[in-house]
Amino acid sequence: MRNITIIVAGGSGTRFGADLPKQFMLLNGKPVLQHTLEAFASASDEIVVVLPLAHHDLWRQLCVDHHCNVPHHVVTGGDTRWQSVKNAIDTLKALPGDVIAVQDGVRPLVSTQVIDQAFAVARQCGSAVPVVPVTDSIRQVEEDGTSHIVPRSVLRAVQTPQAFDAVALKAAYDRPYLPVYTDDASVYELAGHPVTLIDGETTNIKITHPSDLLLAENILRHE
Amino acid sequence: MRNITIIVAGGSGTRFGADLPKQFMLLNGKPVLQHTLEAFASASDEIVVVLPLAHHDLWRQLCVDHHCNVPHHVVTGGDTRWQSVKNAIDTLKALPGDVIAVQDGVRPLVSTQVIDQAFAVARQCGSAVPVVPVTDSIRQVEEDGTSHIVPRSVLRAVQTPQAFDAVALKAAYDRPYLPVYTDDASVYELAGHPVTLIDGETTNIKITHPSDLLLAENILRHE
Repeated sequence: MRNITIIVAGGSGTRFGADLPKQFMLLNGKPVLQHTLEAFASASDEIVVVLPLAHHDLWRQLCVDHHCNVPHHVVTGGDTRWQSVKNAIDTLKALPGDVIAVQDGVRPLVSTQVIDQAFAVARQCGSAVPVVPVTDSIRQVEEDGTSHIVPRSVLRAVQTPQAFDAVALKAAYDRPYLPVYTDDASVYELAGHPVTLIDGETTNIKITHPSDLLLAENILRHE
Repeated sequence: MRNITIIVAGGSGTRFGADLPKQFMLLNGKPVLQHTLEAFASASDEIVVVLPLAHHDLWRQLCVDHHCNVPHHVVTGGDTRWQSVKNAIDTLKALPGDVIAVQDGVRPLVSTQVIDQAFAVARQCGSAVPVVPVTDSIRQVEEDGTSHIVPRSVLRAVQTPQAFDAVALKAAYDRPYLPVYTDDASVYELAGHPVTLIDGETTNIKITHPSDLLLAENILRHE
C-alpha cells in the first residue's frame, strides 16, 4: 500500500533564450524541481526523479547547494514524456494496493491537498487526474480542412499529479507507444481503464517561460 | 470595401491584485490597449474601441498622456464579450465588401502580417480566424460524469483578430445570444457560415496576469 511518485523533468527546453532548463531555474531562491520534490516528500514512500543523463550531475550539485534532503533516486529520461515515465516505471516494483503518481517537474506549486486527494482517490477508484476548465476558445479541425467549435464547457485541461493503481499503470506502460499518448491518463484510458477526474488548481501552473517564474512568485506571495 | 476593426477591451478584471485593468497597464512605457490600437492603424479604415463606461475618461486621458494619435471612436461595452461586440457592430454601417475584424484589446503583440492576412482572407473567403496548436492535454466530460481524451492534434486554440464579411457578421450578431458564443467565430459559424482558419502566432499572447507583461516585454525584445 505504498505511495510512489514519479517526477518527470525530461525537458531540456531553452525557449526564450533561457540558459538553464526550466526545472533548474530558481524560484524564491530554490530550484523549481526542488519545490516540486519537496511538495511530494510527506505523501510519498518512494520518489523517482526522471532527468536526461546530461543533467544528473547538475541536479546532484543543485541538491547539495540548496540543501535538498528529500530521499529520491534518479532515472534517465527518454526522447518522449511517455518513454521517460516508462523508464521510471520499469525500475519500480508495483504491488497490489500501491499507487503511482506522475508529476511534471515544472509544476512546483502543486498543493498538498491535491497530492493527498490524488493518492486517496486513485487508491479508491483506480485513478485520479486533476483538471481545470479550458479558458481559450477551441475549434476542432476535420480531415477535409473544415473546422467547428467545441463547446469549451465540456472540455477540461489536464494537470498533474496524475495518480493510478500501480499494477494497472505498469501494465498500461507495457503496451506499445501511440502518438495520442500526451499524458498518463491517456495511456491508462487506452489500456481500457476509466479515468476519475478530481479538481485541479489554476495556481498549479507549468513553468514554461521564464516569466512564469514571476507569476509563480506572485502566487506564492498571495498564498 | 472598407477594413473595419473592433477592439474589445470590456474587461475590468483585477485578478492577481493589479490596480489597473490589464488593457491600461504599461508595456514598454505605453498602455497595452494603445499597442493593440496602433497595430491596426495602417490596415484599418475605421476603428472602434469598446470600453466600459467607467473607463472612457481614463482612456481619453491615457491617449493624451501617451500621444496616441490613431483615429478611433469609443463605444460602451456590455456585460459579456458578445454584448460588447454587438454594441460596436450596432454603431457600424456594413456595406457589401466590407470586412470587420474583432480584436482582443489585451493582445498587444499581434503582428501586421496576421492582421493583413485576416483582412485579405476574410474578403476572399468570408472569414479568417487565427489558430494555434493546443499544448495542454485535454479531456472531454460527458453528462454522466465520465470523461475521455480528445486527441489534441485535432484541436486548435483560437486567437484574434477574427475577421468576417461585415454584412454576414452583422446579421449573425442580430440573432439571440447563446451560451456557446465564446468568440466571434462561434457566432458566425452558428449563423450557418463556414469558418476559415489561418495560422496564428504563439507570440500573440493575451495579457491575463501582470507577469504576462514581462513575457510580452521579453517577446518584444527578441523580435
